[in-house]
Amino acid sequence: MNDQTNKWIGKRTIRPDGVDKVTGRACYAADNSMPGMIWAKVLRSPHPHAKIRGIDTSKAEALPGVKAVATAKDFVEFPIDTAVPLGIQDMRWMARNMLAHERALFHGHPVAAVAATTAEIAAEACKLIEVDYEVLPWAVEIDDAIAPDATPLFDHIQFEGKPSNIAGKLEHKKGDIEAGFAEADVIIERSFTTRPVHQGYIEPHACTVSVAADGKTTVWSSSQGQFMVRAMTAYLTGIPQSDIRAIPAEIGGGFGGKTIVYLEPVAAILSRKSGRPVKMVMTREEVMRATGPTSGAKMTVKIGAKKDGTIVAGQGTFYLQAGAFPGSPIRGAAGCSFTPYAIPNVLSTGYDVVCNRSKVAAYRAPGAPIGAYGVECVLDEVAQAIGMDPLEMRLKNIAHDGTKAVHGPVFQSIGFAQTIEAALKSDHYKTKLTGKFQGRGVANGWWFNAGGESSAQVNITEDGNVVVTTGHPDIGGSRASIANITAELLGIDYDRVSVLIGDTATIGFSNLTGGSRVLFASAMVVTESTEKVIEQLKQRAAKIWGIDASAVVWENGEARPSGEHTGNFPTMTLAELGAKANETGGPIGAGSQQNTTGAEGGFATHICDVEVDVDLGTVTILRYTCVQDVGKAIHPAYVEGQMQGGVAQGIGWALNEEYIYDKQGRVDNPSFLDYRMPVCSDLPMLDTIMVEVPNPKHPQGVRGVGEAPLVPGPAAVCNAVSNALGIRFHDLPLSPPRIVAAIDANMKQAAE
Amino acid sequence: MNDQTNKWIGKRTIRPDGVDKVTGRACYAADNSMPGMIWAKVLRSPHPHAKIRGIDTSKAEALPGVKAVATAKDFVEFPIDTAVPLGIQDMRWMARNMLAHERALFHGHPVAAVAATTAEIAAEACKLIEVDYEVLPWAVEIDDAIAPDATPLFDHIQFEGKPSNIAGKLEHKKGDIEAGFAEADVIIERSFTTRPVHQGYIEPHACTVSVAADGKTTVWSSSQGQFMVRAMTAYLTGIPQSDIRAIPAEIGGGFGGKTIVYLEPVAAILSRKSGRPVKMVMTREEVMRATGPTSGAKMTVKIGAKKDGTIVAGQGTFYLQAGAFPGSPIRGAAGCSFTPYAIPNVLSTGYDVVCNRSKVAAYRAPGAPIGAYGVECVLDEVAQAIGMDPLEMRLKNIAHDGTKAVHGPVFQSIGFAQTIEAALKSDHYKTKLTGKFQGRGVANGWWFNAGGESSAQVNITEDGNVVVTTGHPDIGGSRASIANITAELLGIDYDRVSVLIGDTATIGFSNLTGGSRVLFASAMVVTESTEKVIEQLKQRAAKIWGIDASAVVWENGEARPSGEHTGNFPTMTLAELGAKANETGGPIGAGSQQNTTGAEGGFATHICDVEVDVDLGTVTILRYTCVQDVGKAIHPAYVEGQMQGGVAQGIGWALNEEYIYDKQGRVDNPSFLDYRMPVCSDLPMLDTIMVEVPNPKHPQGVRGVGEAPLVPGPAAVCNAVSNALGIRFHDLPLSPPRIVAAIDANMKQAAE
Repeated sequence: MNDQTNKWIGKRTIRPDGVDKVTGRACYAADNSMPGMIWAKVLRSPHPHAKIRGIDTSKAEALPGVKAVATAKDFVEFPIDTAVPLGIQDMRWMARNMLAHERALFHGHPVAAVAATTAEIAAEACKLIEVDYEVLPWAVEIDDAIAPDATPLFDHIQFEGKPSNIAGKLEHKKGDIEAGFAEADVIIERSFTTRPVHQGYIEPHACTVSVAADGKTTVWSSSQGQFMVRAMTAYLTGIPQSDIRAIPAEIGGGFGGKTIVYLEPVAAILSRKSGRPVKMVMTREEVMRATGPTSGAKMTVKIGAKKDGTIVAGQGTFYLQAGAFPGSPIRGAAGCSFTPYAIPNVLSTGYDVVCNRSKVAAYRAPGAPIGAYGVECVLDEVAQAIGMDPLEMRLKNIAHDGTKAVHGPVFQSIGFAQTIEAALKSDHYKTKLTGKFQGRGVANGWWFNAGGESSAQVNITEDGNVVVTTGHPDIGGSRASIANITAELLGIDYDRVSVLIGDTATIGFSNLTGGSRVLFASAMVVTESTEKVIEQLKQRAAKIWGIDASAVVWENGEARPSGEHTGNFPTMTLAELGAKANETGGPIGAGSQQNTTGAEGGFATHICDVEVDVDLGTVTILRYTCVQDVGKAIHPAYVEGQMQGGVAQGIGWALNEEYIYDKQGRVDNPSFLDYRMPVCSDLPMLDTIMVEVPNPKHPQGVRGVGEAPLVPGPAAVCNAVSNALGIRFHDLPLSPPRIVAAIDANMKQAAE
Repeated sequence: MNDQTNKWIGKRTIRPDGVDKVTGRACYAADNSMPGMIWAKVLRSPHPHAKIRGIDTSKAEALPGVKAVATAKDFVEFPIDTAVPLGIQDMRWMARNMLAHERALFHGHPVAAVAATTAEIAAEACKLIEVDYEVLPWAVEIDDAIAPDATPLFDHIQFEGKPSNIAGKLEHKKGDIEAGFAEADVIIERSFTTRPVHQGYIEPHACTVSVAADGKTTVWSSSQGQFMVRAMTAYLTGIPQSDIRAIPAEIGGGFGGKTIVYLEPVAAILSRKSGRPVKMVMTREEVMRATGPTSGAKMTVKIGAKKDGTIVAGQGTFYLQAGAFPGSPIRGAAGCSFTPYAIPNVLSTGYDVVCNRSKVAAYRAPGAPIGAYGVECVLDEVAQAIGMDPLEMRLKNIAHDGTKAVHGPVFQSIGFAQTIEAALKSDHYKTKLTGKFQGRGVANGWWFNAGGESSAQVNITEDGNVVVTTGHPDIGGSRASIANITAELLGIDYDRVSVLIGDTATIGFSNLTGGSRVLFASAMVVTESTEKVIEQLKQRAAKIWGIDASAVVWENGEARPSGEHTGNFPTMTLAELGAKANETGGPIGAGSQQNTTGAEGGFATHICDVEVDVDLGTVTILRYTCVQDVGKAIHPAYVEGQMQGGVAQGIGWALNEEYIYDKQGRVDNPSFLDYRMPVCSDLPMLDTIMVEVPNPKHPQGVRGVGEAPLVPGPAAVCNAVSNALGIRFHDLPLSPPRIVAAIDANMKQAAE
């Protein structure tokens, strides 16, 4: 693609879903209703850890208005010691997370659900359910969970031969770590902690599920994947996937947190039992108590470098909270943290720790910001120790095409050097800070980016316009971007392309909106489909002209005779060919289904300037620039939006967001009032620099852009604050009490 | 397809939509609602014919609660003298039928529409609209409309050089008609009339339309074609087709009457103006007054035969009421009536007569029952005159493979002889009638059957089941039949196949559910899609086994290695291959889009026994057998249902149904109380004999079956009544007053 000739790719076209969203017409999950619909509510565990000896639902069932009660016994049984993989999840955990089986494993864990004619009756009935609990000792923090006397959450899980809350270990090795450190002139080793932070999507989980008497099931819900909803509902209810139609609503944010479900299979059970459509809508408190934040973590990072800034060894040990069920993102923490750098000797180890918190869910580059936080903070100290510019030192050590990553693959086409060079050349980096208690931090980040399964269909309407269907919920602008690509390929106006999201019945299997994969993968299947359509259009024109299709050229939205036939026939537009579809052979349209590969990883470099109020302990972000290799920005406004959104979340993670537990193991701040996410007024305009190094394995050069911009954030902010105060921080968030305490401690230390 | 080996094709499987329908869960058009929705009502002309000099909507607009008012001026303009074809319709007529333009052309003709917060306010506001009418002379009957002094409905329509209400003429000629009659030993010529009858679908027209601020439009409605709804809405509103998503509801009957729309474009205009979703639901009275019945007709039929029963000449002249706009089914009347017979000399002429009635709409084999009524009644008299059995005489003259039809095509594979032979051999025909005033009638009928555009998609779910999507509303059992075919082709259980109807955004262009085309056409695209899927499954198995795909056989729902690899690998089921879709290349699924051809016509022979109560004039159907060449009955229960339904409608048409007009040109019986359709208790069990002569041009041998069974009905009943009383009837319906009058006249004549 030559930028000069692109008419739509790279343009900031009006988003097709924008008007519906700003006018309030867009249908989110809770907007769906059905005749005869009833409401369901969930009974949740009051204990962070307890055996469930029995559940008596008889009083609830007897309450007038109650139509059905569900407990774990209504699900298909998945023995606790047998893995049942579904994508990156395990159905035995998903089942137990949705309705507690043998034990309640966290405060707020669903234990039963009631469907009734009103939500109020359902809530009232929940109170009438009698659960016979045997309360057990609990642990919400990693250190408590892995202490020798900790009560294991699962009887069958062992680590190093003993019952344990360490549910898994991942190790990446490269070179000889001991020999590496032996070569180093400078070695810095630090321990860090991060707190769990929630994805903070604005739309709480909600669904309506209708199971007919013959088992035909319709699910309306908001998720990051209608096919995931279908699969999980099928697994847990035993209804065949082909009998379930999962219809995606518009989604009010997901950030990874909606790659799993909490409600749909429960609603399906209740609908099947009651014979009525069942609606469930979580409150914000339920979202905060029982849906996945990302892991809190503790980690130790050790880096050795030569005096000239060459890094010779890196070691990281990352303990991540999985919450109540195994599956913390240790792959992201241990796999992404050292990957930006061509370090000859690396040992990166992750431990998956279960504890009595809600099960973690994916959160935008899961685990990577945690690992990057430790590594990038230590790198800062290394640069400081050897007296180099922190960005220059990083640039000296970065991965290039041909570098083998710690976790295995060899980079083939990355734009990391260009990203750091752009940061170095930026006005931001060249502008010095002059104020008191001001500081600058930089950090890098990398994310895998995914390919995977996608399907698309491109159809030409009778009036010669285009309808494109794909199978992924549009979170980050995929409809607008796909319209840009389709208009470009067909040589027609952007306004003539409508892009829609199909439900599971009307488009082929398409994997989750996640892994920064959607535009990468869907552009590939849409491109293949559109190319088939162009071939059809050429054949139709050839048929009309009575010449061979090979002599027809498609250009600027028109078929044109070429070669010996040049000029013999007037060109035919898409509108003309669309109108003649019937007489030339039938409808014009084509589909494609692929398991896409070739998604190269994405790199980001962040520069953050802060000013600290040393009396209040508050941190003001003065300026923030996110530089990122975005491959090819199909729709630059959306790419910038992704970058800005990632930065905002990174700042929240660094400065204020955290789960606070009370002494009974209960979340103490389950609301947006007490859980402090940054809002618009907390932030300056977030600057973005898009570096475009097209991915050669993609027809439009697309590289995932959605997750990388969160990765460096916490480290960049923390380095900036450390720089502003001359105090190194190792624990997030850098909330006012912590900053004030650190300043006090520092002053005390200086005084001593 | 060998019947012996078919597991699902030909089986009476449980209909997938059955449970939803009998439990009341199925969503019909009026079941849809939206937040913020408002209601629209239509103001209708109180005059059968009037110039519209002006419309003042200001008072209506000022009524509190009124959100928008629409008149014809809101539509895209279509000049009255320029054809704008859309399928078999012309948009300039459709536009004027939906909202009167220059003139109101029938009593009940929509003149304006109002959308308001409640239906009551909308109705109240309609009364406040002031229409300045110039009342014109009107004609509802053919003779009045074509009288020399009739007032033409359209200034620009001329016939034989003069302004006329004859809007079109169609002539089919074969041989030399004069020479033919010169050869005849017996010539019978009779004139007939039939009255307009309504399709009588149980579900009135209804829709909800939502136009967003950016023009993106969603239409929920019940119709015989979501793509027709999209196209008509696009044409009249100017919204591009690609911006309109037309979602088909379940349909409560159509019979041709829902191949056009009355409400959707009006609702779209009102929604665009008001910014609100707009719902419209017709009352039964509105349905009867302003939606299409089929034509009333007058005709003269003349047939000449030799003494041995050889028919040598046939002539028919058919005048059909078009209602207010051109387009009566003269093609069906003039084209189908003589086609069952290999008559050497034929002249068949149809005239399209506009008059001040509601515009006719298609009704099951449009026009064919009218033409067959005249021809089959005259044939009965010819047989009587030469003393032959009426079926034997018909059999002597029927068309065979190779016979050139009057309207042009040469029959290639028809089962007409087998149909009549089956009738002759039937227990019914062999059983003599013995009672007083009992009589038997027979008649034949033929319908073209259509092919045309269809699209399908077949996807394999992760659990190895199948989802099939097609693009036609399921009226006659296409979902069940397609599931039978797909299960058969894949070699899996019927229960593992879900068949769904896509909306216009999620499946390729698919033409109307009409013309008896749906199973014929959709089976072709589903078969092609399924064959592609089987090819993919073989490739996936080959990849797993590391052998060539050509060495893999698909059999009984499993992939099996063959040739040199026979027995080397265990077979793999669809479930196993579905679960491995990702690792073997991505989603498994394929689509197909075709303009199908090869739909051979369908023939039916009906035998009807009646008993007449000569005092009351009532006719009791004693026994009725419908014999029909059904090609291959994919789902016999549905085929029989089609045959029985057609017979019931034919009996209604013959005996009781008719539009009665008052002296002011208004329909006087616009309700199911006064418009007498036969109900279950009026009819005996209707017997069916399916003759299966597979269509060699179709992969499963399918031949359209939906329309042919209506064609012979009116003639068969009329011949039976004539036989019972010894009085020939020439005018339908044979209602009690008409029968009593005929008996009285006959007795009077005998007495004279």
